Amino acid sequence: QTIIDALHETVRQTAIWEPENQSETSHNKTLLFADPMKPCRRTRAVVKEWLLKLRCCLGAVCGMEWYGYAALGILTAILSFLMDLSVTKLLRAHRWLYMNLEGNTLLQFFCWTLYPACLCAVASSFSHNICPFSTGSGIPEVRTMLAGIEMPHYLSLTNMFTKFLGLICTLAAGSTVFLGKVGPFVHLSTMVGAYLSTLCSLMREHKKEKAAGEMMVVAAAVGVASCFGAPISGVLFSVEVMCSHFSLRYYCPCFFSAACGALTFRLFSVWSGDGETLQALFKTNFPTALPFYPLEILLFACLGLLCGAVSCCYLFCHRWILRFTKTSGIFVMMLTTEKALYSATVAFLLATLTFPHSAGQYMASQHTMKQLLTTLLDSRPWSAQSHNASVEPLLEWSSSGSPAYLSLAVFLLMKMWMLVLACTLPLPAGYFMPVFIYGAALGRLLAEGVAHVSSTGLTSDQQWASLNPGGYALAGAAAFSGAVTHTLSPVLLAIELTGQFSHAVPILLATLTANAVARSGNRPSFYDALSVSKSLPHLPSLMKARPQLPSTPIGQVLGVNLVRLQKAAGPAEVQHAVNTSTDTEIPVVDSLESQILLGFVLRPHLLMFLRHSEAESLDKRLDEVCCIHPTSALLSPHNTIQEAHSILSLVGAETLFVADRGRLVGLITWPEMKRIIEDLAKEI
Amino acid sequence: QTIIDALHETVRQTAIWEPENQSETSHNKTLLFADPMKPCRRTRAVVKEWLLKLRCCLGAVCGMEWYGYAALGILTAILSFLMDLSVTKLLRAHRWLYMNLEGNTLLQFFCWTLYPACLCAVASSFSHNICPFSTGSGIPEVRTMLAGIEMPHYLSLTNMFTKFLGLICTLAAGSTVFLGKVGPFVHLSTMVGAYLSTLCSLMREHKKEKAAGEMMVVAAAVGVASCFGAPISGVLFSVEVMCSHFSLRYYCPCFFSAACGALTFRLFSVWSGDGETLQALFKTNFPTALPFYPLEILLFACLGLLCGAVSCCYLFCHRWILRFTKTSGIFVMMLTTEKALYSATVAFLLATLTFPHSAGQYMASQHTMKQLLTTLLDSRPWSAQSHNASVEPLLEWSSSGSPAYLSLAVFLLMKMWMLVLACTLPLPAGYFMPVFIYGAALGRLLAEGVAHVSSTGLTSDQQWASLNPGGYALAGAAAFSGAVTHTLSPVLLAIELTGQFSHAVPILLATLTANAVARSGNRPSFYDALSVSKSLPHLPSLMKARPQLPSTPIGQVLGVNLVRLQKAAGPAEVQHAVNTSTDTEIPVVDSLESQILLGFVLRPHLLMFLRHSEAESLDKRLDEVCCIHPTSALLSPHNTIQEAHSILSLVGAETLFVADRGRLVGLITWPEMKRIIEDLAKEI
Repeated sequence: QTIIDALHETVRQTAIWEPENQSETSHNKTLLFADPMKPCRRTRAVVKEWLLKLRCCLGAVCGMEWYGYAALGILTAILSFLMDLSVTKLLRAHRWLYMNLEGNTLLQFFCWTLYPACLCAVASSFSHNICPFSTGSGIPEVRTMLAGIEMPHYLSLTNMFTKFLGLICTLAAGSTVFLGKVGPFVHLSTMVGAYLSTLCSLMREHKKEKAAGEMMVVAAAVGVASCFGAPISGVLFSVEVMCSHFSLRYYCPCFFSAACGALTFRLFSVWSGDGETLQALFKTNFPTALPFYPLEILLFACLGLLCGAVSCCYLFCHRWILRFTKTSGIFVMMLTTEKALYSATVAFLLATLTFPHSAGQYMASQHTMKQLLTTLLDSRPWSAQSHNASVEPLLEWSSSGSPAYLSLAVFLLMKMWMLVLACTLPLPAGYFMPVFIYGAALGRLLAEGVAHVSSTGLTSDQQWASLNPGGYALAGAAAFSGAVTHTLSPVLLAIELTGQFSHAVPILLATLTANAVARSGNRPSFYDALSVSKSLPHLPSLMKARPQLPSTPIGQVLGVNLVRLQKAAGPAEVQHAVNTSTDTEIPVVDSLESQILLGFVLRPHLLMFLRHSEAESLDKRLDEVCCIHPTSALLSPHNTIQEAHSILSLVGAETLFVADRGRLVGLITWPEMKRIIEDLAKEI
Repeated sequence: QTIIDALHETVRQTAIWEPENQSETSHNKTLLFADPMKPCRRTRAVVKEWLLKLRCCLGAVCGMEWYGYAALGILTAILSFLMDLSVTKLLRAHRWLYMNLEGNTLLQFFCWTLYPACLCAVASSFSHNICPFSTGSGIPEVRTMLAGIEMPHYLSLTNMFTKFLGLICTLAAGSTVFLGKVGPFVHLSTMVGAYLSTLCSLMREHKKEKAAGEMMVVAAAVGVASCFGAPISGVLFSVEVMCSHFSLRYYCPCFFSAACGALTFRLFSVWSGDGETLQALFKTNFPTALPFYPLEILLFACLGLLCGAVSCCYLFCHRWILRFTKTSGIFVMMLTTEKALYSATVAFLLATLTFPHSAGQYMASQHTMKQLLTTLLDSRPWSAQSHNASVEPLLEWSSSGSPAYLSLAVFLLMKMWMLVLACTLPLPAGYFMPVFIYGAALGRLLAEGVAHVSSTGLTSDQQWASLNPGGYALAGAAAFSGAVTHTLSPVLLAIELTGQFSHAVPILLATLTANAVARSGNRPSFYDALSVSKSLPHLPSLMKARPQLPSTPIGQVLGVNLVRLQKAAGPAEVQHAVNTSTDTEIPVVDSLESQILLGFVLRPHLLMFLRHSEAESLDKRLDEVCCIHPTSALLSPHNTIQEAHSILSLVGAETLFVADRGRLVGLITWPEMKRIIEDLAKEI
């Protein structure tokens, strides 16, 4: 009888513990009136009531989370537009200054070199002093968070602020440091998503769902979509960036939010006077009648092979410099204490090399990155232009009179190591766009080379002389960036950036070939190398570095001090368990000898049990008062870490218990999983 | 000592049981020589040796499965091309006959009606007599198989043969029965995939992987890709068609195989003289300078709402007729015994209505489906054409002198119920393309209506009079077909079919809006309704029909007669277990009283144990001889069916054991899961 009474009491108390479900409006109002310290109580109450009514109206149309997705897309697009606007203004200021100093080479040199150096120094010191987590691309961190590991530092408001301002400085440094926008933008969008998700969970009527993960996946798609106004590649990117499985639950939200972002971004460009209607960012005018001959398919496949091979070389250099900056004494010192100085030095060095009156004239350094891409994607062959004087040359790749493809070759050779060097800069920067442009240059070089060879009469086939080098540049861009990042979404990105669908199949073919070359031999991708170098707890990257590691049975890596309660535990034992453990779910075993797992109790119930037994000073047993919840799926100690990781993310449980023949041997939570993966990462 | 000896023996015997790993070549050769019944032994041995060498060479470049993926794409594309070729010839024959009978209306009527009626009767009787599983679209079945349920009937060679020939007949019946190709093609591609997967697993060096599921996912992508030469929408389709999770392992294979398929399909069309180069199937010429005004975005959203609303109506009619054909006596009788007669009657009825000399003239029935889509996607407004006599009218939608949009309206009204009726035909047929064309007509009607209203001077805004109705038709097609099937891949399909990227964002917007309308209120999609009507064991469809069902705890639905062995079981008990159970993994418990689950033994080991104890007539215990394998993840009886389903497909295990507090209570295998879901489906 007593037991049943106690249980009734428990149920009643639980109801008091979760009172928000019923009559929330009036409850909130009374709370508000009751607090004498808050000013304007009446106004606040009225406003709150209106807000609640608004929530009801909005909630009637569709779930609260959909407004969150729309807001995420729109906010990120606004951020993206604002950033583009500021960067354009800063770049124009630099150009204006440089042009006004025409005639005085020394002053021009200082203007050319000190401007980016200062900007880089500002970005570096900014991120060093305010939030050190804001440096780099952010995509490795986003991937880790999408795999379920919590990293609150990377989602803080300070980080968002720092990353936004730092990225503006980096982009304003222009084509001398040659860094991009996508990666940090995906990170920025994740931070916006994290805030909106908190907001949504506050506004939703206390459904106990964990929507943060969902918002993160959506945010990854939105980041790409609102950076370029490219919704479909954004969604594909978010599919690729996932750990091992893409849940179809995220599919529609991703598309919806990405469409909102892309639409807003393009509408803003229309309103700012960039174009008469919604258009692609790098609109091209390829001939539509005969985009390419069927035989050119082979040349596109060759381009894919070339891009794959060059990407392997690039990735090797990148891994080398990542190791070098960690082992070389001077680098380590500079990168830990004198980040601003280091950034300024590197930017100065890069700017000196690209100064247009010296080596820069051989690599078209006067163009901004946007101009570079536009000129590379132009459909008119450069060789034809130099022959035909009536067509005014669109570009100045061949300013010094040398043939255009020679300066293209110099550009490729120099940019390779300059890009690798720029990747070491400790400031917020994206590494995708530079790689994309590099690939475009590779494709253009191949096409111009073939056109040149066939126009000089070595082959009698006229077909090869009239090919469209713009198409090759586009395919090369997608193939090279795809190979470097081990992804296929650049195919869609290339199409969406140019609005050019006629080359879809060749671009896909080239990217697949390049990916095949780059992935062969289980080589790590660009982001994998960064993850390993930063020791992030990202399982797939670790698997690339040491394939056998994640197959370790979890029995070998479980934590040692496991808190458990026996069924017949008294208040003293419960008090001890509550003090030593921080988990919300505490396992209950039959007895400490048999260790047969019965289920778990929730921490709040334990606290209630303690308060109860203190008040009534009765010596009740745990199973008489608390409800022992049955466990969900159990792991066995022979499951591998990878399986445990997948099951944890799939089941959506907070805690998974590990039992061997019914006996409790451990438990896996996300913090525990993070610890395990970090331990694994240290072994590399 | 005896125990260790026995264990050693076990290990040795296991090695004998799996001898294929070592020296396979010589082993095969000796087997071949040893069999005196086979002719040409020497030649066969030589050929086999060469094949093995070839396999080594191929295997050095990449895994065997990649050749499988390439072969899958190429074979499916060849099938698709052959089908298109035959259908075109059959359609041309019909048209030639009809034209030659010009002047004699009665003969023309018979030609018009009997030709499709006969073809439908042939297709129906063919599939009824040879393989009844070949009727319908096949996508519901493919979705079920992708969810892990095995349905060997749907993958048989007979089915493939029947489906291919039946589909040719259905398509040759033309626009009178108005059925499409995609669905059955996805099914055909799955069958090809299943065969190639068997072949690959034979050729691979006996890796114990289960590659069949992988090949199926890839086949779904290839089906769409080689049907239209649209690789990217194929991949998106295969993401959408999955049950709940898309494994990233499939991502690259899908793209690779889809690219192979699309490339082959387009190359074949080039070689057959359809075009000078690889082009989109329905290439359009939209104006590129100003594809649409920013304000038109709103009109596209309205179009999405309209398409969503009409799709709800269409789906309601479809569900109604599915129920009606199961309850109405005459329909049930016709559809079970007289399938050919039923098909012929329905086709005759449809053809009578579309006869060009009667009602058909108001709905452009003389056009084939391809011509219909081409005319609908034309960028020139019809209203302008009728005003301007100098532009020759491209189409004959207004053959009777009435305005084009009136016949468009008649087309829409009539086709709605004709389409619903055609869906009941028991023959291999796709339902996607008709819906796509219907949506295009909807979009065209809206655009023509707006253009007509604004050209008659009701609005002063010239902008609305000059809109491009082709763009609206495209958006309508994607939105309506997306809403009917609850998918978003039609956006990409619309883009890839026309090669028109300028309208990507409005199309996406319209499709998202239409999907939102169609999915509201947890309504089932077209395929969900088919799954439920056919009682297929597809969990997500069941969830739509009865949301609480899959949340049933598995403890309530477990099978009753569970075979288990105790640790100390003797030969008699093992013999009994082997006789009563067919599972490969048989659970071992501590003792029959405690029921504590220790692990499982493999069936071959049990058989070996029996043979062993017979031979030596020793009375050994099970745990002395057989190795008891530890279990992987355990389920608890409180896990829901949905969780069990996800974990089963994720872990990739054959068997999952269900234990409560360490005690074995049941096991879940795929056949068991199929039984459970089928039981659930019966409850609806």
